[in-house]
Amino acid sequence: MTEAVNATEAPASDGANLSDITTEEIFAGHLGGKLSVELTAPLETQRDLSIAYTPGVAKVCLGIAEDESLAKTYTWAERLVVVVSDGTAVLGLGDIGARASLPVMEGKAALFKKFAGLDSIPLVLDTKDPDAIVETLIRLRPSFGAVNLEDISAPRCFEIEKRVVEALDCPVMHDDQHGTAIVVLAALKGAAAVQGRDMSGLKVVVSGAGAAGVACTNILLAAGVSDIVVLDSKGIVSTGRTDLNEVKAELAQRTNPRGIAGGAAEALAGADVFLGLSAGTIAEELIASMAPESIVFAMSNPDPEIHPEVAKKYAAIVATGRSDFPNQINNVLAFPGVFKGALDAGARRITEGMKVAAAEAIFNVVADELSVDRIIPSPLDPRVAPAVAEAVGNAARAEGVA
Amino acid sequence: MTEAVNATEAPASDGANLSDITTEEIFAGHLGGKLSVELTAPLETQRDLSIAYTPGVAKVCLGIAEDESLAKTYTWAERLVVVVSDGTAVLGLGDIGARASLPVMEGKAALFKKFAGLDSIPLVLDTKDPDAIVETLIRLRPSFGAVNLEDISAPRCFEIEKRVVEALDCPVMHDDQHGTAIVVLAALKGAAAVQGRDMSGLKVVVSGAGAAGVACTNILLAAGVSDIVVLDSKGIVSTGRTDLNEVKAELAQRTNPRGIAGGAAEALAGADVFLGLSAGTIAEELIASMAPESIVFAMSNPDPEIHPEVAKKYAAIVATGRSDFPNQINNVLAFPGVFKGALDAGARRITEGMKVAAAEAIFNVVADELSVDRIIPSPLDPRVAPAVAEAVGNAARAEGVA
Repeated sequence: MTEAVNATEAPASDGANLSDITTEEIFAGHLGGKLSVELTAPLETQRDLSIAYTPGVAKVCLGIAEDESLAKTYTWAERLVVVVSDGTAVLGLGDIGARASLPVMEGKAALFKKFAGLDSIPLVLDTKDPDAIVETLIRLRPSFGAVNLEDISAPRCFEIEKRVVEALDCPVMHDDQHGTAIVVLAALKGAAAVQGRDMSGLKVVVSGAGAAGVACTNILLAAGVSDIVVLDSKGIVSTGRTDLNEVKAELAQRTNPRGIAGGAAEALAGADVFLGLSAGTIAEELIASMAPESIVFAMSNPDPEIHPEVAKKYAAIVATGRSDFPNQINNVLAFPGVFKGALDAGARRITEGMKVAAAEAIFNVVADELSVDRIIPSPLDPRVAPAVAEAVGNAARAEGVA
Repeated sequence: MTEAVNATEAPASDGANLSDITTEEIFAGHLGGKLSVELTAPLETQRDLSIAYTPGVAKVCLGIAEDESLAKTYTWAERLVVVVSDGTAVLGLGDIGARASLPVMEGKAALFKKFAGLDSIPLVLDTKDPDAIVETLIRLRPSFGAVNLEDISAPRCFEIEKRVVEALDCPVMHDDQHGTAIVVLAALKGAAAVQGRDMSGLKVVVSGAGAAGVACTNILLAAGVSDIVVLDSKGIVSTGRTDLNEVKAELAQRTNPRGIAGGAAEALAGADVFLGLSAGTIAEELIASMAPESIVFAMSNPDPEIHPEVAKKYAAIVATGRSDFPNQINNVLAFPGVFKGALDAGARRITEGMKVAAAEAIFNVVADELSVDRIIPSPLDPRVAPAVAEAVGNAARAEGVA
């Protein structure tokens, strides 16, 4: 038994101070990996062996050969989520490679099981070539039922996700984009509800034009927010710039409606919402320059763009990605339920409508419990994944993809 | 609970009559698939989440990024066996495709867990192109620790295995070749020991020049058997034939030392051992034409080349692939222990010496219990896998591959 295992005896609200978790305890918690494969039925007798393996298994094989849809019922594959990464954008650590990304992918697979009961395995790829990544998943298609793309660097992640979605007839989602976007939308709905404001009227600044920044901008636009200014490392993403990649150039067409030029200072002056989605920092005086009753989501992890207690001096509502402050914005609120809902419904893809439905379901779980320190459910709230799954399944059916 | 689960309450020796297993019972035993992914430690609290996932996991990722060998200790991957198939030669069913092969691959993965405690997952490929299969495994290398190639048609299987072995620095074995060969060698050692004969002097006929036939011939030659005649569908594989593929032509150079021409009748007249490794049948009168005290392994499954009770009229020792007759030749005696031994030892490949050591270990388990109806251990004998693993590990170290 590791110390990490013993720690589970502590109550679920024990996250107030995580600084006492030692490096030794963390490594002990990862010893041997975090996943195991188990048998769903015993294999103790010749009879068991003759049913599960030869000669009995031949009948099941022939059944699937005659009707491929039986694979869904008599194998694990069509409900198996593969967590796929090339290790190019792992957490805030950057391009540390496929092998070093494994602990994150195993953790993700463990969370799929824990929160949605879905079997999930990591597949990490020793290639960064989008063609090779897409091709590999096409070849492996009969092995799985859904693809969670993870920690793939921008802008490659946009092309890879688009091509995998087009190539495969199953749910595919790049979680760093859409999982984050779903939870940010849910949290912003929560914050606006606490303040009694209409979300669509908020002036939003998105700091970061990577995977999460682009997806958050898209889902907020889809949810009716019209005034969004996006910042990248060079300043405001705007039509006047000539240094933008294709994705950012396209984003410039749909954002910055007031045509602001400049950087973070110009963007934040008078803004209502700051969404920190880069690994950078934001100066205290810029947060101070925001409009009254401002909302700050400083989601860089483990170090928020601004310390939440500093932000709180100016902002009415502050959220981070951390478990040791109120309002933790954590993708685990979205991805288990999104995939469960999509797989339960037999959805062939994950649509924008399914993502918005997921955000609404997360928001609805705490709609009657909202406060400035509770704009979103806890990542451990067991009500969330089933609610998200149901909403996503309904949306899939409504949109005709299931 | 399925009927298959209830069946485990029967004793382990319940295999005498499997004809009472119904199709319904078989399908029920495969419902939802035979594998699940489980967590090795609970994820109940914020503290658990902070250790297993962000922010704690970042320390483990950075550790592996600095020293890749740590992946072996802190992820599951380097001990994970992938069971890889393209579905081109599934059991005796032929090319039924990747999806329809899944029940066999799940069964294999379940057996790895049951007998060797190894985590294992099926990866089935929607391509038959050897280049694509090899390339896919190279790309996925950081995801696993060993490769069990399975049910890939000959002669493609020879090239694919050779290339995967050359490309990857981990244990790789095509089980239909080498697992079968190991168990056949163990059984032939057992049969020869029961008869007090020297195995190397036996005249052996191998019926089938596919994956199993070629590998059995090779391991028997390596074990000192010098008089082997191989049959394919056209007759005796010999240097005089012009219709042989590369693998068979090479085999012709090393077999048929007496230069026999013809077919099964010419090969079997006066032979000591018949190894049935094709899906064909063999006529009773040909078995009758073998030398006194003959040994017949009729391993075609589910229908042996000759019914064992008919063979028993002429042969001193009869074995099959079936659990409902004595002397079941089942690969499960070999592959779990072979991979466990190789992985425990940190072997970079599986050598011929490791395979021969595995066969000796299987034989040694029952060396003191041998009889004509017990030339090999039961597939459920719990002593086998640990003994094989130890022998394989020792051989790996002796051969300098660990």
